[in-house]
Amino acid sequence: MSILVVGSIAFDSVKTPFGTCDRALGGAANFFSMTASLFTKIQLVGVVGEDFPADHLKYLESRGVDIAGVQQSPGKTFHWQGNYGYDLNEAQTLKTELNVFGSFNPILPEPYKQAEIVFLANIDPVLQLQVLEQVKNPKLVALDTMNFWIESKNAELKKVISQIDILFINESELRQLAAERNTVKAAKKMQALGPKTIIVKRGEYGALMFHEQGCFFTPAFPLEDLYDPTGAGDTFAAGFMGYLDQTGKSDFESFKEAMVMGSVMASFAIEDFSFDRIKRLEKHEIEARCFEFKQLT
Amino acid sequence: MSILVVGSIAFDSVKTPFGTCDRALGGAANFFSMTASLFTKIQLVGVVGEDFPADHLKYLESRGVDIAGVQQSPGKTFHWQGNYGYDLNEAQTLKTELNVFGSFNPILPEPYKQAEIVFLANIDPVLQLQVLEQVKNPKLVALDTMNFWIESKNAELKKVISQIDILFINESELRQLAAERNTVKAAKKMQALGPKTIIVKRGEYGALMFHEQGCFFTPAFPLEDLYDPTGAGDTFAAGFMGYLDQTGKSDFESFKEAMVMGSVMASFAIEDFSFDRIKRLEKHEIEARCFEFKQLT
Repeated sequence: MSILVVGSIAFDSVKTPFGTCDRALGGAANFFSMTASLFTKIQLVGVVGEDFPADHLKYLESRGVDIAGVQQSPGKTFHWQGNYGYDLNEAQTLKTELNVFGSFNPILPEPYKQAEIVFLANIDPVLQLQVLEQVKNPKLVALDTMNFWIESKNAELKKVISQIDILFINESELRQLAAERNTVKAAKKMQALGPKTIIVKRGEYGALMFHEQGCFFTPAFPLEDLYDPTGAGDTFAAGFMGYLDQTGKSDFESFKEAMVMGSVMASFAIEDFSFDRIKRLEKHEIEARCFEFKQLT
Repeated sequence: MSILVVGSIAFDSVKTPFGTCDRALGGAANFFSMTASLFTKIQLVGVVGEDFPADHLKYLESRGVDIAGVQQSPGKTFHWQGNYGYDLNEAQTLKTELNVFGSFNPILPEPYKQAEIVFLANIDPVLQLQVLEQVKNPKLVALDTMNFWIESKNAELKKVISQIDILFINESELRQLAAERNTVKAAKKMQALGPKTIIVKRGEYGALMFHEQGCFFTPAFPLEDLYDPTGAGDTFAAGFMGYLDQTGKSDFESFKEAMVMGSVMASFAIEDFSFDRIKRLEKHEIEARCFEFKQLT
């Protein structure tokens, strides 16, 4: 099988207490593709500017990512600049230059329209809807979003959420979206809107899944050295979705295993800047950490 | 067996978004005794004023708490007043009236000096040391503390910590005490000081145990209705220590089970003000929640 992903492909300039990186490769769909391609084939939908390195697109292809859905537009690639403090939990955004992303109109290549598994990474919910409308008969649709869209496109966001199966969302943003301070109640409110599974991301405190058959929790893997949390959420989603697609399963037990895989992949992502750690990651390292992870709880 | 506990017996006036309680029974050693007495016998060391209800001391006795170590001094009982906001994670202290606690000099009744398991609840580390010096041959000593003592009696606190086996501490206070922002590194620094086990309390995000044989994590039980987090940490410690004393075990596997029991007991504590929920708690409810809890991870 394969996963269709739509979202940002970007340059990230990040400063953390442990170092800086300038215009490193990033963006939600890029992070997702880099990681999920370790598990399955990916169909990538996004836009880059004229300044985007062709080498990276070729590299994605070499990892089994279909880039037929990546448009190249006149202008510059989306650029995000942010800082993290010592707690590494929340980024302070210094600059968001949408560039070619500002006028992005996602058009799916014909084969993509048959996609069965779809990940709508964090972008304008109007674009997420546009993509979803082009997919003929998806079996599993997941979505990620953020406070910016909760505030600026609330109705559109709720419309697309009503059509999905899995919502990935930060805890504070879940509370904001549901207008409910208690996380359990907030998750139930969102489930009532459509998605049967709500995956609450808590940064260094792990993730909590509300599934129709119950609740399941994974901690964040305790690391001594972490460098850059950028893309950790997308990497989590990629491990989760990649595992499901690879195994072809969708029962509660598989969702639990997928939570573990998501946590494990996210733990690697933050060990280096951009997706440098994911790039050099080997299968035996994933297996070893999955084993260690299961000893934790 | 039994557990010797020393710490505060107090009146708590608490305001949360869900209600208020005025001069309810509280204090770390009181919370600990109420909960741990569900598992084992307790020897309680503390001080109350002339205004403290004799009925409550009798009630503690009826639960198997030996109150020979509770002094009654002229004056008023320790009184704490605090508010919690919606997140219920951190209390804002409005008033701390030490009263009789200000001149407390803990003297252990003869039988207490044979105690094998000791819990030094959050009080002045000088008093914690004084108690420990009177115990002849303790097998397992645990301690809880807080930022106030980290700042005001740092050397004394480190001295007593060097003599214990288990340190219970909030995550931010662990970082403060170790002067290290990374939790894993901070826990290792504290282990190097003496205690082989560090239990990091993370409020609504659960608890993380660093044991010489590995790391273990428990989430907080996801509750829809929670009222008052006062005493949750002491209740956690009581479930943990009570379980160990009841089973007579101290291997890594038993410590993991004790973490689960601590989390389960804490989840009950916050469902009502003071220890009202613990008071009416029945054995089958504990068993049921332990079962539910284990499904979570």
